[in-house]
Amino acid sequence: MRIVFIQTGGTIDKDYPRTRKGYAFEIREPAVERILQKVHPNLDYKIIPLLKKDSQDITKQDREKIRETCEGVNSDKIVITHGTDTMLETARKLDGIKSKVIILTGAMRPEKFVDSDAPFNVGTAIGAINILTKGVYVAMNGRIYPWNKVKRNQKTGQFVEG
Amino acid sequence: MRIVFIQTGGTIDKDYPRTRKGYAFEIREPAVERILQKVHPNLDYKIIPLLKKDSQDITKQDREKIRETCEGVNSDKIVITHGTDTMLETARKLDGIKSKVIILTGAMRPEKFVDSDAPFNVGTAIGAINILTKGVYVAMNGRIYPWNKVKRNQKTGQFVEG
Amino acid sequence: MRIVFIQTGGTIDKDYPRTRKGYAFEIREPAVERILQKVHPNLDYKIIPLLKKDSQDITKQDREKIRETCEGVNSDKIVITHGTDTMLETARKLDGIKSKVIILTGAMRPEKFVDSDAPFNVGTAIGAINILTKGVYVAMNGRIYPWNKVKRNQKTGQFVEG
Amino acid sequence: MRIVFIQTGGTIDKDYPRTRKGYAFEIREPAVERILQKVHPNLDYKIIPLLKKDSQDITKQDREKIRETCEGVNSDKIVITHGTDTMLETARKLDGIKSKVIILTGAMRPEKFVDSDAPFNVGTAIGAINILTKGVYVAMNGRIYPWNKVKRNQKTGQFVEG
Repeated sequence: MRIVFIQTGGTIDKDYPRTRKGYAFEIREPAVERILQKVHPNLDYKIIPLLKKDSQDITKQDREKIRETCEGVNSDKIVITHGTDTMLETARKLDGIKSKVIILTGAMRPEKFVDSDAPFNVGTAIGAINILTKGVYVAMNGRIYPWNKVKRNQKTGQFVEG
Repeated sequence: MRIVFIQTGGTIDKDYPRTRKGYAFEIREPAVERILQKVHPNLDYKIIPLLKKDSQDITKQDREKIRETCEGVNSDKIVITHGTDTMLETARKLDGIKSKVIILTGAMRPEKFVDSDAPFNVGTAIGAINILTKGVYVAMNGRIYPWNKVKRNQKTGQFVEG
Repeated sequence: MRIVFIQTGGTIDKDYPRTRKGYAFEIREPAVERILQKVHPNLDYKIIPLLKKDSQDITKQDREKIRETCEGVNSDKIVITHGTDTMLETARKLDGIKSKVIILTGAMRPEKFVDSDAPFNVGTAIGAINILTKGVYVAMNGRIYPWNKVKRNQKTGQFVEG
Repeated sequence: MRIVFIQTGGTIDKDYPRTRKGYAFEIREPAVERILQKVHPNLDYKIIPLLKKDSQDITKQDREKIRETCEGVNSDKIVITHGTDTMLETARKLDGIKSKVIILTGAMRPEKFVDSDAPFNVGTAIGAINILTKGVYVAMNGRIYPWNKVKRNQKTGQFVEG
């Protein structure tokens, strides 16, 4: 089984800045890399570090670039790690790509934090991608949602049916 | 979506003993409980603490008890956390249960360890169980294997196609 | 032995924001509280949450407040958790307080991060405060420096003799 | 400042076995190595992996070996990581070594566990050793005890004045 992972940024990848004066987070290496190193996956995989952005900063051009990357990669199984704030917009943009299954996931707390949801979320995406063969999905809060059947609860931040 | 989790023990749950003289591990609360607390799952779930055994110590009677529990619970989606050493024997024992999907998972390193594969593995089981509707599966090393299409690599401990 | 801990903020306490759109860190409960809970200390202690500031934002008035608090508390052993950027300025401000030992410490990575130096640093401060009886010190990078015999290496951020 | 660390084993170093069938812990690399890597210490140090034993298994000959090593090393500051069960026996054995300060420490939960006291305890030993110049001490539960002024609370396992 071969999966291509695409890093776009988001909370999942946020780390403490290397510089001495640190007000804001930095995004560096993809968290999915560290997660996979601990689980000895029986998979072929490749990680494409496409963007390192908070998803509030992802532009229309960025989303086109994400779509082009998905269309171009030599794999029919793609997991995209993405910020949760605009994950659903990117998901919508990817609808219609043929013959591939694409699952977007991310985290509410950075993978570098001791109580992160990142390993679990990436796990749900990979578990589902073992079974699914096409379409665009969002893997958050323990659920696998078709991209057009999910919304975000404004108060809690949870991804729910909608 | 409703999932019933059944704890049988295994590495995933192993913790350092409370007693002062500690040669061997102890199994106490189910790791799956701690994992789910960090991810705010959009699920109904219940955790049944059935056994707290290293899977080398699981007997024929224990496996019958696991099977009876699966048949009896009021849910068609079941995740069993189990030791990796005899996970495949228990999986075989569960074949034939109708109208339910049962996924066994566990970990090579306890959930209490900083570099554990436990959250990821439980994640893969839950991701797959969102999609699957019946049958018995093993979720390890990033893969979802039908119970009769998996074996264990004796040298590395990895679960592979077989 | 009785120690009073004073929280002023800094990297050690930084956490991921609760709000959904998270560019910058938030400081909430003192990290020293979580650290002490894991070690069953044979100490009486009290934690005063005085400030929750990045130390670049600590003002002259804040430093006076810190000094007044140190002078006022009912203990001759005080550990202050503080941001590393202006720790030495605050230390200088505390010189001259009689009959108490005051040790400032902090961290380069938040206590909430998996690879944090926070528990170790707080440990060094507490280890030293068992022995010392008066004066103002800085506990960082495994060393206990008198406040006026330490400087910061601009490039690496390390606290060194100076 | 130069510190020599001596590894004797104990809970602090316990790790999950590499072998597939894991009833009991294994001791491999010294935990103190991993702890120091996170804190960028401004110290010269050397780690001597002398023993890898649960301290219930430390023999009279082992304690003589520990003493000879302490006498022989080219440093007047020594930190020994040791199991908590017989730490006080080893401490007694080291009394009388001249012109050196020796501090024994360990942990109630392995450094590999997410909620370990190990980094904090090693921190307290190093903080104290910055100040002390001779004698044998035990650093546990946030306290620095002269070797002959400490005992263990049988029920709780805490090291207290005695």
